[in-house]
Amino acid sequence: MTMPDLDAIAARIARRDDAAVAAARDRQRQLTKPTGALGRLEELSVWLAGAQGACPPPPLERVRVVVFAGDHGIAQAGVSAYPSEVTAQMIGNFLSGGAAVNVLARLTGASVRVVDMAVDAETPAEIATYKVRHGSGRIDVADALTRDEAERALGAGMAIADEEVDAGADLLVPGDMGIGNTTPAAVLVAALTGAELASVVGRGTGIDDRVWMRKAAAVRDALRRTRPVLGDPVQVLATAGGADFAAMTGFLLQAAVRRTPVVLDGVVSGACALVAHRIAFRASDWWLAGHRSTEPAHAQALDRLGLDPIVDLGLRLGEGTGALVALPVLAAAGATLREMATFDEAGVSGKGSGDR
Amino acid sequence: MTMPDLDAIAARIARRDDAAVAAARDRQRQLTKPTGALGRLEELSVWLAGAQGACPPPPLERVRVVVFAGDHGIAQAGVSAYPSEVTAQMIGNFLSGGAAVNVLARLTGASVRVVDMAVDAETPAEIATYKVRHGSGRIDVADALTRDEAERALGAGMAIADEEVDAGADLLVPGDMGIGNTTPAAVLVAALTGAELASVVGRGTGIDDRVWMRKAAAVRDALRRTRPVLGDPVQVLATAGGADFAAMTGFLLQAAVRRTPVVLDGVVSGACALVAHRIAFRASDWWLAGHRSTEPAHAQALDRLGLDPIVDLGLRLGEGTGALVALPVLAAAGATLREMATFDEAGVSGKGSGDR
Repeated sequence: MTMPDLDAIAARIARRDDAAVAAARDRQRQLTKPTGALGRLEELSVWLAGAQGACPPPPLERVRVVVFAGDHGIAQAGVSAYPSEVTAQMIGNFLSGGAAVNVLARLTGASVRVVDMAVDAETPAEIATYKVRHGSGRIDVADALTRDEAERALGAGMAIADEEVDAGADLLVPGDMGIGNTTPAAVLVAALTGAELASVVGRGTGIDDRVWMRKAAAVRDALRRTRPVLGDPVQVLATAGGADFAAMTGFLLQAAVRRTPVVLDGVVSGACALVAHRIAFRASDWWLAGHRSTEPAHAQALDRLGLDPIVDLGLRLGEGTGALVALPVLAAAGATLREMATFDEAGVSGKGSGDR
Repeated sequence: MTMPDLDAIAARIARRDDAAVAAARDRQRQLTKPTGALGRLEELSVWLAGAQGACPPPPLERVRVVVFAGDHGIAQAGVSAYPSEVTAQMIGNFLSGGAAVNVLARLTGASVRVVDMAVDAETPAEIATYKVRHGSGRIDVADALTRDEAERALGAGMAIADEEVDAGADLLVPGDMGIGNTTPAAVLVAALTGAELASVVGRGTGIDDRVWMRKAAAVRDALRRTRPVLGDPVQVLATAGGADFAAMTGFLLQAAVRRTPVVLDGVVSGACALVAHRIAFRASDWWLAGHRSTEPAHAQALDRLGLDPIVDLGLRLGEGTGALVALPVLAAAGATLREMATFDEAGVSGKGSGDR
């Protein structure tokens, strides 16, 4: 796979459909409720109409979660409460349908695909097609990836988005699995937003103060290695990300190219969204923030991206779970715009109609 | 219908099931995720196990919304952006399935019942069984209801809860429809929480400053009439509520007696919950706050009740819509507790197991 031309990608990203947006705003004013009374649902319905290019927007029937899995050398620095082998074990759990993302996908009618980008173990061949390496490098002392690996992973993520859109996906959710992955996420967010160390290093899987100190030191060292390459987003992914991060970044970019709405999940997708936004700022026009995670770097990323999370429920699991919890709100937004009666249809007097 | 003995009702309200709560907490620790990583979903799953008396809690399959409809004489004071006839028109809309509550109920698998308690128009006989009067009184200058009417309406709400639980409802949602109803809601909340006038009077259906001034004056006058009867919750409903409010209050109490969980909606259900809580403080053990409305009195009511809303999406429509938007989050909570694999089942290493 050759490296895609990032400038060409950025140029190919269109705006959401202005005509559908205008039609949705107009229809919201005719529905049997005071204008604005459905609050965020109204905004989301207008967004969805623009992203789907139709008013009312059709139901979301092929929501696809792609879980980008990878191990991170930084886990060897003792930054997580769990050992690295959990990444591969959890892949087994995803494939047998027992993880939180599986449960929530079943509940919301979504489906889950797992992609091994850099798991430090053998995984079933069908999920390892795009695998770049066994574990990304230990970012406090070395690059996560070579330049070539970063480019291949980015291209893989784009190819995956293409596959999913070609297969009919009408909304994409980027999920993540990888012990240690909140550490590169914190580095990317700090590097790309300028946020202070203490405001990006979180508790991840639930670490104690001692482990947090180690994690903060790792983030500090990796940040020092990242700052010199900030002008080159692909090199940022190579230096401080990982193959899973690079692939997710490509996935988010190509979803925008393909005019397919995305609901972002937690801090890993927030970090990748920042990188993708640096490559093509218009890409964020196609993204919603599903939730706000308790990882502090996530709030920093959303703030920089100007995205307001749909729900805020204290989740910090990743996998795509926060996006899936928000999905029914998006479905509710679309359904009200699509199915509610208008004042005329229902024979209901509009606002102030007594004076007319 | 005779007046129920309120002390006897309060005595009949049990706590949620402690054993199921303990079992749910224990199971949460065994599921394949860091403990706490599902945040509010974990808390809600434990709550649900306690309310349903089973761990894991069974799926919610018979969610029933009961919309308590009534007109309010205070609408004649010009406190709403809509004329009173909209109440009856919206009932037609509910019955033909075109209102927001219908759309959201279809989406979440819930069903909707409309009860005319005091609509100022003739409505179909099947929804008017419990009707108490045509429009409740204008509360700035007169009582909303006679004592007898308040008692009958309260008893009707209890009977309705019994009917729904007997028919198999596993979760109840109180909905409201009535032009002018945020005015009595504001009075009840101010009276029962001591909140200041300006912090309970909201924009309702979307009123301008001039109308807001009239509404504030109406709330002030009604509050003056309500304060002397504060020791008598039924008289509070008679003085400043309405037949729809009295019925919803009885409904909330009897749901608790029948050990049936309730998801509250907006400011009207918040106001009724405050009255019901005054009658039987343990009743709130059976309630969740679905959302936080933009009506300022709602936040005051939730604060006093100690309820943390599940979503906060700027809704202010009533009907039960805010509760229905939150319902999928509750379903997600139950499903994760029920369906996720445990560490043992999935062969995943637990936290810190590398050290064991």
